[in-house]
Amino acid sequence: MAEPARLERLERRVRELEEELARERRGRAAARARIDTMSAEVTDSNPYSRLMALKRMGIVKDYEKIRTFTVAVVGVGGVGSVTAEMLTRCGIGKLLLFDYDKVELANMNRLFFQPHQAGLSKVQAAEHTLRDINPDVQFEVHNYNITTLDNFEHFMDRISNGALEEGKPVDLVLSCVDNFEARMAINTACNELGQIWMESGVSENAVSGHIQLIIPGESACFACAPPLVVAANIDEKTLKREGVCAASLPTTMGVVAGMLCVSRYLLNFGTVSYYLGYNAMQDFFPTMSMKPNPQCSDHNCRKQQENYKKKEAARPKEEVIEKEEEIVHEDNDWGIELVSEISEDELKAASGPVPELPEGISVAYTIPDKEENLITGETVAESEESLEELMAKMRNM
Amino acid sequence: MAEPARLERLERRVRELEEELARERRGRAAARARIDTMSAEVTDSNPYSRLMALKRMGIVKDYEKIRTFTVAVVGVGGVGSVTAEMLTRCGIGKLLLFDYDKVELANMNRLFFQPHQAGLSKVQAAEHTLRDINPDVQFEVHNYNITTLDNFEHFMDRISNGALEEGKPVDLVLSCVDNFEARMAINTACNELGQIWMESGVSENAVSGHIQLIIPGESACFACAPPLVVAANIDEKTLKREGVCAASLPTTMGVVAGMLCVSRYLLNFGTVSYYLGYNAMQDFFPTMSMKPNPQCSDHNCRKQQENYKKKEAARPKEEVIEKEEEIVHEDNDWGIELVSEISEDELKAASGPVPELPEGISVAYTIPDKEENLITGETVAESEESLEELMAKMRNM
Repeated sequence: MAEPARLERLERRVRELEEELARERRGRAAARARIDTMSAEVTDSNPYSRLMALKRMGIVKDYEKIRTFTVAVVGVGGVGSVTAEMLTRCGIGKLLLFDYDKVELANMNRLFFQPHQAGLSKVQAAEHTLRDINPDVQFEVHNYNITTLDNFEHFMDRISNGALEEGKPVDLVLSCVDNFEARMAINTACNELGQIWMESGVSENAVSGHIQLIIPGESACFACAPPLVVAANIDEKTLKREGVCAASLPTTMGVVAGMLCVSRYLLNFGTVSYYLGYNAMQDFFPTMSMKPNPQCSDHNCRKQQENYKKKEAARPKEEVIEKEEEIVHEDNDWGIELVSEISEDELKAASGPVPELPEGISVAYTIPDKEENLITGETVAESEESLEELMAKMRNM
Repeated sequence: MAEPARLERLERRVRELEEELARERRGRAAARARIDTMSAEVTDSNPYSRLMALKRMGIVKDYEKIRTFTVAVVGVGGVGSVTAEMLTRCGIGKLLLFDYDKVELANMNRLFFQPHQAGLSKVQAAEHTLRDINPDVQFEVHNYNITTLDNFEHFMDRISNGALEEGKPVDLVLSCVDNFEARMAINTACNELGQIWMESGVSENAVSGHIQLIIPGESACFACAPPLVVAANIDEKTLKREGVCAASLPTTMGVVAGMLCVSRYLLNFGTVSYYLGYNAMQDFFPTMSMKPNPQCSDHNCRKQQENYKKKEAARPKEEVIEKEEEIVHEDNDWGIELVSEISEDELKAASGPVPELPEGISVAYTIPDKEENLITGETVAESEESLEELMAKMRNM
């Protein structure tokens, strides 16, 4: 072929390919422009009309306020990714996402991630999808494990300063992690910062889950009492621990994400449960609330309790709002319900206060006696063997 | 630039663009090959490992059986799309999707659809996304309104014959529609066919919802008793009906989808509630069950009741499983709970049996006295004005 003809052919081909690529990318990219002001106008093209309708219906006073909030989601797995998507679709101001995992095909039994994202980091893949869904939301993603020392410091810094207005703290931290260390790291950070957070969890057998609202000083923190789980009444003897993976279901995780997603808390409508469980085997949803433990092993929790007491005492009497009945746990009160996942001996071997619990809620394990830095994952207990087993279980949770 | 250098540059550019385009397209297409046999192998690349783990944990006996089931989802909106995604990720055999709506940006406040899909039919957009997520699932989509006469016949035919093995009925019908006529059409079809189905609904103010399992002849059908809704204790006076849209939240819809998604029913684990409500304002989840009404206006329902009685009578005594306590509704028993959405006068003007209801559940409206074909949407009532208002409300539901 003559050189000029070849050049012309190649140039045409480049133009064609560029067009095709642009079209291909347009299809995937944000299909809507940013929207400066939320409108209640009822048109097919208004992505906020069904949300702004909550105002007209008397559910939410000032829906637009959602745009001023920042939420940190720690763990972008089966629960965290769906919660982040819900917040994105609700028009949250800013999302901080923390995770160090990669998307795998083995995650495809839960909502959100798609097979073509396998191999990408979870935070990257999530940011890409969420930006497409709502370009009005700001994202800040961190692809690291919050439990290592350096990362923990950076995590603390971002929680304290990462709001829409840099230098201000986030409005809420959501724990959607799948292990004990990460939960303890979040607990430690939030106790130190006085940061309100919500914890969530789904059982290893996929059929129960819970959420818990933790207001440092006001409600029990993760170290105040044994973490509570919803008993599924399953014979756990069939469950072998080594070399197996946890089961999961998109249904249970979707329900827990829906329970966790906190537009209610941020926008101040309805009640927010301190503890809400879900037993998918019996469609049972126990609720409860729990006061903090004055002997909590986390000294920042005890400090927050003092602050809260002072604040409460300083409040004029008429302002005191009637609270729902709370379960006060008494120290060394061994009114333990039998826990399906742990033998009675194991439970007795572990120490720490155990609250009286409503039907269907059990302790996952108890807190070791001695105060120690749980971020490092070190544990000391009177009866070491059984507690270690217990902790190993929690780590695999 | 010299010709050879220019040629080389262009050729390199073409190769680059071809690669990019291929990667871009690979990204959108199914990123995994079909899988012939579900495996429990714990590897990152096995999309079924976390589901097959349910067997090892003693939750499900034969998880692979999910591949033999066909589910019809009627209405692919905020609840239906998420339910279809959950079933797809669970590895259901076949999904039939029915909807006649188009994706709009106004739907973006709920999970599932993406802005770039605006303008596509909901069933097409859903099929595209779901096939990418799990190419092992078979899809059959129908872009029509099931309530018109022709479509209703075709709908009946597909419910009766559209299973994996053509000619066999589907295993379950899920009603995820947003209006009264469509619910009645599904009810009529399922009563005639003796087809088990589940109904779902989310309130216009976005903060409550419910699911209901209907086994023709065994549990109350949609015409047996006034449809039940979960009262949200909201002052409905602030709600104007004309020219407004219903509010919706991804959270409530996600929770209802999770409650509806029926791997439990199909795979026979846990209990399946006959009625499960969700009040998002109070985190309240009422349950109940209801026997069919011997005077039901649907003659096929009455026929199914006769069949069920005969079947029960023929069953050997020892096989009779103890049933949970059921609420038997008595005819002309006016023990009505006050309904937040409807005035007492309106309620009295409408007729039909009203069951005694547990706390938190109310009737949405009552059934008109005369037996008539509700598919056409015609209604006759003693006090026409108030009932018409009532029905108009339901149509907007």
